[in-house]
Amino acid sequence: MKRKTAVLTKFNALLEIREQEIEPLKEGEVLVELEASGVCGSDVHMWKGKDPRTALPLILGHEGVGRVADMCGPKTDVFGHQLKEGDLIIWDRGVTCNLCYLCAVRKEPSLCPNRQVYGIVRDGCYATHLTLLAETKVIRMENMLGESGPASTDRIDPAILVAASCSGATAAHTVELLPIQPGDLVVLQGPGPLGLFCLAFALAKGASQAVVIGTRADAKRLELAKEFGAVHTSVVEDSSVKARREEVMELTNGIGANVVIDCTGTPASFNEGLRLTAPGGTYSLPGIATPVGEVPMRLYEDVARKNVRIQGVWVSDTSHVYQAVRLVLSGRFPLHKLVTHRFPLEKVMDALKVVDSKKAIKAVLVPGGK
Amino acid sequence: MKRKTAVLTKFNALLEIREQEIEPLKEGEVLVELEASGVCGSDVHMWKGKDPRTALPLILGHEGVGRVADMCGPKTDVFGHQLKEGDLIIWDRGVTCNLCYLCAVRKEPSLCPNRQVYGIVRDGCYATHLTLLAETKVIRMENMLGESGPASTDRIDPAILVAASCSGATAAHTVELLPIQPGDLVVLQGPGPLGLFCLAFALAKGASQAVVIGTRADAKRLELAKEFGAVHTSVVEDSSVKARREEVMELTNGIGANVVIDCTGTPASFNEGLRLTAPGGTYSLPGIATPVGEVPMRLYEDVARKNVRIQGVWVSDTSHVYQAVRLVLSGRFPLHKLVTHRFPLEKVMDALKVVDSKKAIKAVLVPGGK
Amino acid sequence: MKRKTAVLTKFNALLEIREQEIEPLKEGEVLVELEASGVCGSDVHMWKGKDPRTALPLILGHEGVGRVADMCGPKTDVFGHQLKEGDLIIWDRGVTCNLCYLCAVRKEPSLCPNRQVYGIVRDGCYATHLTLLAETKVIRMENMLGESGPASTDRIDPAILVAASCSGATAAHTVELLPIQPGDLVVLQGPGPLGLFCLAFALAKGASQAVVIGTRADAKRLELAKEFGAVHTSVVEDSSVKARREEVMELTNGIGANVVIDCTGTPASFNEGLRLTAPGGTYSLPGIATPVGEVPMRLYEDVARKNVRIQGVWVSDTSHVYQAVRLVLSGRFPLHKLVTHRFPLEKVMDALKVVDSKKAIKAVLVPGGK
Amino acid sequence: MKRKTAVLTKFNALLEIREQEIEPLKEGEVLVELEASGVCGSDVHMWKGKDPRTALPLILGHEGVGRVADMCGPKTDVFGHQLKEGDLIIWDRGVTCNLCYLCAVRKEPSLCPNRQVYGIVRDGCYATHLTLLAETKVIRMENMLGESGPASTDRIDPAILVAASCSGATAAHTVELLPIQPGDLVVLQGPGPLGLFCLAFALAKGASQAVVIGTRADAKRLELAKEFGAVHTSVVEDSSVKARREEVMELTNGIGANVVIDCTGTPASFNEGLRLTAPGGTYSLPGIATPVGEVPMRLYEDVARKNVRIQGVWVSDTSHVYQAVRLVLSGRFPLHKLVTHRFPLEKVMDALKVVDSKKAIKAVLVPGGK
Repeated sequence: MKRKTAVLTKFNALLEIREQEIEPLKEGEVLVELEASGVCGSDVHMWKGKDPRTALPLILGHEGVGRVADMCGPKTDVFGHQLKEGDLIIWDRGVTCNLCYLCAVRKEPSLCPNRQVYGIVRDGCYATHLTLLAETKVIRMENMLGESGPASTDRIDPAILVAASCSGATAAHTVELLPIQPGDLVVLQGPGPLGLFCLAFALAKGASQAVVIGTRADAKRLELAKEFGAVHTSVVEDSSVKARREEVMELTNGIGANVVIDCTGTPASFNEGLRLTAPGGTYSLPGIATPVGEVPMRLYEDVARKNVRIQGVWVSDTSHVYQAVRLVLSGRFPLHKLVTHRFPLEKVMDALKVVDSKKAIKAVLVPGGK
Repeated sequence: MKRKTAVLTKFNALLEIREQEIEPLKEGEVLVELEASGVCGSDVHMWKGKDPRTALPLILGHEGVGRVADMCGPKTDVFGHQLKEGDLIIWDRGVTCNLCYLCAVRKEPSLCPNRQVYGIVRDGCYATHLTLLAETKVIRMENMLGESGPASTDRIDPAILVAASCSGATAAHTVELLPIQPGDLVVLQGPGPLGLFCLAFALAKGASQAVVIGTRADAKRLELAKEFGAVHTSVVEDSSVKARREEVMELTNGIGANVVIDCTGTPASFNEGLRLTAPGGTYSLPGIATPVGEVPMRLYEDVARKNVRIQGVWVSDTSHVYQAVRLVLSGRFPLHKLVTHRFPLEKVMDALKVVDSKKAIKAVLVPGGK
Repeated sequence: MKRKTAVLTKFNALLEIREQEIEPLKEGEVLVELEASGVCGSDVHMWKGKDPRTALPLILGHEGVGRVADMCGPKTDVFGHQLKEGDLIIWDRGVTCNLCYLCAVRKEPSLCPNRQVYGIVRDGCYATHLTLLAETKVIRMENMLGESGPASTDRIDPAILVAASCSGATAAHTVELLPIQPGDLVVLQGPGPLGLFCLAFALAKGASQAVVIGTRADAKRLELAKEFGAVHTSVVEDSSVKARREEVMELTNGIGANVVIDCTGTPASFNEGLRLTAPGGTYSLPGIATPVGEVPMRLYEDVARKNVRIQGVWVSDTSHVYQAVRLVLSGRFPLHKLVTHRFPLEKVMDALKVVDSKKAIKAVLVPGGK
Repeated sequence: MKRKTAVLTKFNALLEIREQEIEPLKEGEVLVELEASGVCGSDVHMWKGKDPRTALPLILGHEGVGRVADMCGPKTDVFGHQLKEGDLIIWDRGVTCNLCYLCAVRKEPSLCPNRQVYGIVRDGCYATHLTLLAETKVIRMENMLGESGPASTDRIDPAILVAASCSGATAAHTVELLPIQPGDLVVLQGPGPLGLFCLAFALAKGASQAVVIGTRADAKRLELAKEFGAVHTSVVEDSSVKARREEVMELTNGIGANVVIDCTGTPASFNEGLRLTAPGGTYSLPGIATPVGEVPMRLYEDVARKNVRIQGVWVSDTSHVYQAVRLVLSGRFPLHKLVTHRFPLEKVMDALKVVDSKKAIKAVLVPGGK
């Protein structure tokens, strides 16, 4: 049996569309026919050779949703249900060792030094099919239905769900590390897919006011942020750091933002965000996914004197994928509006381009052509 | 200057409507003209003499919202704004000493042994006016407006806001003590005002599914629970413990409820709730406000073997009032539908009666007649 | 190659000493030559047929320390070091699936429904040799040495270390679930091996005062508790519930115990312990390991009114084994005094007897005869 | 009645020894005869005019222990005991408003914008007597005795206890904000009084290994750190950043320090400390008490990629003073060795000098001449 793949063989060059033989499954492995494969901003970084983890050749794509096409022996999902052919599934993109200090003693599998990630450390989802290792944690969508969500898996759009496995999950992790209390004001910097998921999770966990700061290129994303429930949005080019600070202070009676989430992925916004943080508040930076150099930080004024916490966030684990799937299915936020572009696998270069140019909010490959 | 009050002079007897001279204010005290005074289920308990704290005579009423009528010297709200005549305010009903082990060392003022509560330990809100002690924590509604909420305090209905100072605050405390994660399923037993606020807070903090169990007398409350977002409701008389358990297990793929909140105020629901709790989950009992005797508990099967937490909840503090006010103003939940009955001060006995009979969801006195 | 084992074939009957062929190792498995095999109180329960999990025939023994005798392919410890023959190791007695909701989504492997425990669910350590499954989490003692601990693994007494894998680990889990603050007073009920480990962990995590309550049969254990740092001990038969309550109130200026840990394993101590708990405090029951029936509990006076938490504790995971190993090696507490009896494998019935009679604090089998 | 004081009237100039009339006490105020007045490193900063909060003239001294000399009306300690003349007491140096957002809603009184600190915002302890405001939180030492500590307050050395009110309390706050687990390795940079208290608290809360980094001038402090239980100490001038990193990596099997506490008070140690922090670990900076400018920080490598938390720490509240008092009284650490110099009030300039020169670990004024 064969599958079609899009392979990165050289940085900054066209991905090669190949037809490859699917290797026989080993015990516990699952062959998935992909229905959606998300194009993440970090795929563009990898394509440009900016992610130090990238070894060529590689099939990119760490976000995937698909249906079980074949199995070798029994394999269960997180709820202990046996998978069977045709099941719609999503999975934790990181396969961890479960045996090391960070997995077993700290219970932080996202930091496992042996973590293998589909589409980053091993071949991924820019393909018609993907073989999941036996150690992969799988969520069978049939088990996520119910009175609160879609009535059948046919009602789930894989392209909308797919972001739960990366942006959504990282946002869940981000917000898990933030001590949000009901009534808090959150500032979000950088309303891309990760940022909008962070906004949704912050509101879903009780924040009652959210301010979003973006650029002119983010115009549509800022509009969407308002739909998600942001009370105020600012455009960097059309206002000043001082004006934005005054807005936040006005909304918080001079206290500042209880939580600031920086999803810009660049260091430029760091000091603005840190200074918007309230005494006792937390500044979080989930967007930093590749080396960006140094930023200067005032230790006394912006950290010590304010008892502020700065929280790094690195990727996610199965708990976060699960939370993100629940958020998507809940329908509380119009997350379907994130998916502005869909492409067949062969048009993968177009997909990378609209992501790189920020023309898309989120682009998704639909290898099966749906 | 005089005020009208409704005084409990004898248990189970009519409250006396009196006209009393308002005592001169001391430094820092604030005279409030009440616009709404909530009739809480525990007022009925007190009226019946079931609350061991009640010393007669007493002006009941621990939930109040009103406008500043007079002050003695400057007094600020939690945001440091000077109060002025006409300001619409709400306040923490408990005045704590700030100096004791539970206030200062544990930072749990709700457990302060010196806590004085308006309407319980000292005279309360069943009156046209109330004098707030200088140590009272005050929230000025003008400071809670903004792009996310009502545009002016005229748009705030005091009768709807008033429950934030007791049921809402206790619900905020309840949920603060529960480790809810996004994606969790919550079971709520007892959908009275406290229960519905707990439901709202549980959903506001990330629960993605909620099941509510009530009695036939709760029919309207169960309907309202659905409007709040409950995915399923059960009527105790029309189903069995076993059937209700199967429903929860079905919705959770056999895991159980991550969190169970028992707001029935009776011990009858205890073991059902505890057994619905998932391994590693939490069972919380904020509704127990007066002595109810003993319940039998299976230590191994229902607590130890499942690593379950049982969490007592006692009243609330200013942080919880603040969170409840934010929740009400956010408009996310139709909390205005809680207020089914309004009465002038003179009709206080009618108010107690509709609460006792469960005909009302929430009854409110509007002493100014609005 | 052969091994000697002690097999439970019939409840309440003599264990059979057998010689069995060791099965060939599979990929990743490790053959351990046992140097110490702890005899836990729950082994006695199992021997008596009181633990519902026990399926016969079974080699008991869930606590083990030994040296690597053989391996099939490479196997690493939690620090990523390759094991080699002769390494002294300890391991997590529970082998979990890592794929289910409780493992992967809740990150609570101790609650994994697929958890296999050596000596409980599958054959254990009452033997000269044990084969560890590839999924077993292993701590190589060589990696735990250093300037703070023993200079070489020869300085580690396996019989003293062995309790870290069960009582020690469960105590670590217990204390992890308790919000102990420096300065807290802890009451411990039941100073057996689990209780004494809980005492040590509570003091190691900042409790500054500890009161221990035992029976006359616990006389030596109470003495040892004083050596561990308990400020006060009480003998149940020689004092009254009232007197013990007064002692705790005296020591805490009337507040009560911030934390109560009940390791008696019986329900008799439940209400005394719960009523010693301070407002806002926590009562924990790690000792309940088999069904003990029901206890009556006053919901208002002892739970709700005091905002108390009751915390079930079920077994432990690798993080807790690790913490317990660190505690033993630190030498801060005289944990070596726990081990009052050592027996060769053939004398296993004597070992069970001294544990059952409470003559031993802790009995250990030393299969290699050391 | 008169008191003797040492007044800062001009930065960098001799403090003036004055005799002043003690003002009549107001309701709830307590006159204390000081038995010990600590000389903190920040007093030197203030004397040099480096602390932006200092308004002249000012009686320095924010650390005090003394006996009740007079009272105006009843005043209770945190345990509700009435103070009486002769009682030995310590108190929270910060008097907070209890009414603001940070006090009442966030329950973080250390961040209260209205916090008045004896010796910083208002007159302090460089005096024979001090009048405590009615709102001051007081701990009466008689209530802290018992079977675990000194038998009578005569056995308490005020000079040793006094640091509990500042360094000790700030250390308690620092460690409260650090998620230390038993078995963790802690690195401490800067073993001054604050650093040594942080070391003690980190060990008291379960850290099992501690590495301390100081300068040659810290030689005695490093020795004392070893007595406290540090497994390793390094001298900055006698080793390299690389060598120190290798030592920590060696002790942690390549993981890094779970917690790093920087008490140097300078930015020079920031990046070394941050890079010693393990993935998922926390870097804390309680020592930064005055403006020190900017430090460059690598966002990806040192924060995001490692999921690291950076935690600012600002002063302390009553809970921390209480914890520090308990720690001192427990006798577990040789904290008495911190006090290397004692001076009468008149020799205050000598005291400031030995602190500035680092010749003292801790210098204390004993105004009563004991």
